[in-house]
Amino acid sequence: MAPSAPHQKLWVETDGQLVMSDYRVRLLELVGETGSLADAASALGLSYRRAWGKVKEIEANLGRSLVRSEVGGAGGGRTALTPEAEELVAAYRRFQERVEQDIEGAYDAELRDLLTPP
Amino acid sequence: MAPSAPHQKLWVETDGQLVMSDYRVRLLELVGETGSLADAASALGLSYRRAWGKVKEIEANLGRSLVRSEVGGAGGGRTALTPEAEELVAAYRRFQERVEQDIEGAYDAELRDLLTPP
Repeated sequence: MAPSAPHQKLWVETDGQLVMSDYRVRLLELVGETGSLADAASALGLSYRRAWGKVKEIEANLGRSLVRSEVGGAGGGRTALTPEAEELVAAYRRFQERVEQDIEGAYDAELRDLLTPP
Repeated sequence: MAPSAPHQKLWVETDGQLVMSDYRVRLLELVGETGSLADAASALGLSYRRAWGKVKEIEANLGRSLVRSEVGGAGGGRTALTPEAEELVAAYRRFQERVEQDIEGAYDAELRDLLTPP
């Protein structure tokens, strides 16, 4: 039997309002990776409209622009992350990694033995 | 405006199976506090049947008895946590507290400045 393992979901609130989460960061990250909001939406099983709305909501909550459209070129337009969004995604990933390591440590110290089936 | 703050949901899986979570620990804790599965269920807005099923599921996943019935007495029977369940609840609470502190630290180090509205 595999050992038990801790899992977590993380998010950030300001005044009770969700401003960032694992899921939202993944959406932004996919925009950066694919250069396309449509592709990012599709990868998450969201409609383009829904993904666009989410990005605009995050921008409104943070008071910052996170994506910018680059018009033209051979394949039509692209959507790119702003430098602020790239910084935010990278910082959130560092935050997640630190937390995951911390959780493993706390789990080993407090719970692993108790939750490993006899 | 209030500062932004990190939040988390924690749980434990074994072989992809949920074996413990914030919610389940709260259910067990309420049984211990109230001495009654019916009262614990009611406090969480669960039916008695649902709460009983959850406790039995946790016991099955862990291979341990977590509650015991104490028959009789003036007010009828009571339900109490087993010593193993009490230990588990206490250990999970310590795990949560450590993680919350760790998350605050990771958040301060990586994200707080970026997510505080300008």
